[in-house]
Amino acid sequence: MTYCCGILVREGLVMIADTRTNAGLDNISTFRKLQLFEQPGRHVMTIAASGNLSVTQGAVNLLMEGLENPETGETERLADAQSMVAAAHLVGRAVRRSLELMGDAVRQPGVSFDVSLLFGGQIGAARPRLFMIYTAGNAIECTPDTPYLQIGEHKYGKPILDRAITYDTEIYDALKIGLISMDSTIRSNLSVGLPIDIALMRSGALKTEVAARIDANDAYFRDLRERWSAALREAHMAIPPPPYRNPQ
Amino acid sequence: MTYCCGILVREGLVMIADTRTNAGLDNISTFRKLQLFEQPGRHVMTIAASGNLSVTQGAVNLLMEGLENPETGETERLADAQSMVAAAHLVGRAVRRSLELMGDAVRQPGVSFDVSLLFGGQIGAARPRLFMIYTAGNAIECTPDTPYLQIGEHKYGKPILDRAITYDTEIYDALKIGLISMDSTIRSNLSVGLPIDIALMRSGALKTEVAARIDANDAYFRDLRERWSAALREAHMAIPPPPYRNPQ
Repeated sequence: MTYCCGILVREGLVMIADTRTNAGLDNISTFRKLQLFEQPGRHVMTIAASGNLSVTQGAVNLLMEGLENPETGETERLADAQSMVAAAHLVGRAVRRSLELMGDAVRQPGVSFDVSLLFGGQIGAARPRLFMIYTAGNAIECTPDTPYLQIGEHKYGKPILDRAITYDTEIYDALKIGLISMDSTIRSNLSVGLPIDIALMRSGALKTEVAARIDANDAYFRDLRERWSAALREAHMAIPPPPYRNPQ
Repeated sequence: MTYCCGILVREGLVMIADTRTNAGLDNISTFRKLQLFEQPGRHVMTIAASGNLSVTQGAVNLLMEGLENPETGETERLADAQSMVAAAHLVGRAVRRSLELMGDAVRQPGVSFDVSLLFGGQIGAARPRLFMIYTAGNAIECTPDTPYLQIGEHKYGKPILDRAITYDTEIYDALKIGLISMDSTIRSNLSVGLPIDIALMRSGALKTEVAARIDANDAYFRDLRERWSAALREAHMAIPPPPYRNPQ
């Protein structure tokens, strides 16, 4: 499995993805699921992928090498997209094309070819945007009401996002809260694991301010995990004991 | 959906269940999912149920009224069980019998008749035990290594249990942490909702020390939710900001 989240705040966009993949329970590997498409000064885009790895890798390859637009006959690459909406449509078409290229293989019983992707970034002077793209190629867009989107094993790490993130959260706080959300998931679900890839794009910068990989030796992330665990312990210990008792 | 958890610590057993049921997204009701079987001084047992409500209610009715043991021809009620292991087997048989009584209805396409139950308690001088019972009637037992079991929407509330509960946790702390786990679930998943039913059985007491319902007006639970939210905010604000930056 996978856990990725994208957080879109007023100051910009944060993307976080784990790297654990598994084919069955006993075939576990490390694969990059966070891809950057960056041309400083023109655009910065990023895709986080969950689900069938052959489909998502195929889609990313198509986006880099180009896929034909059936209406115009032209070959389109993600790097040439003129707007984030057009780019999100292209990502959706790349997912569908990646599935088509597999032919009848996608009708194998017992194998899921479903995927979901987070696609976020900024092109030119337009504002940063964040989309979730489904297997069918359709997309939903993140809005300030709920300024994050998640894919994969999203439930463990949702409570902290629900409580802590608003559209006005400072961007490095958003990154920190995203890392706490990732830590909660890693701790409770073996199918999500280190290292973690992160990207931070400040609105208007048109380049990544952070593009890093966090592994088990990362001093900040280890400290964050320990502080968070200790704070949770203190937090529940500070709450008074429940007063409920049956009448004697 | 549903969220229930059972926590078995050295001092005894805590059971917590929400009461929200839904048939589809727009047909939401309140049903008790936590059932007590209590004969003070002899036994105290409790069942928390998730999944198909007609199957679980049918099973509970059979356990109260008695179901035939096909090997002996005798009618057995849960209240007559001589040990928690025998009682867990009886609960499993009641689930299977409840399904059988529905006949071909359980083969309707698109309707799930799956259930899972938490069954815990104490009979006589033997120690308290806690089981999870599946649709097929089979069971697993909770052990001190992981002193809790969950059914239903278990992922949102798992991180706090994983961090905070050990077999040596004080029993009212276990109840408090269970309520935090329930609050995290309610907050992030609309299909789990108040009121909450709780039961606390101290080892050896052979009666419930707490059997209560917590609704939206409960002062302690409101305070717990507010304190927990505030503590989480403080906890993440106390963690230093992430140091990652790309080289300029």
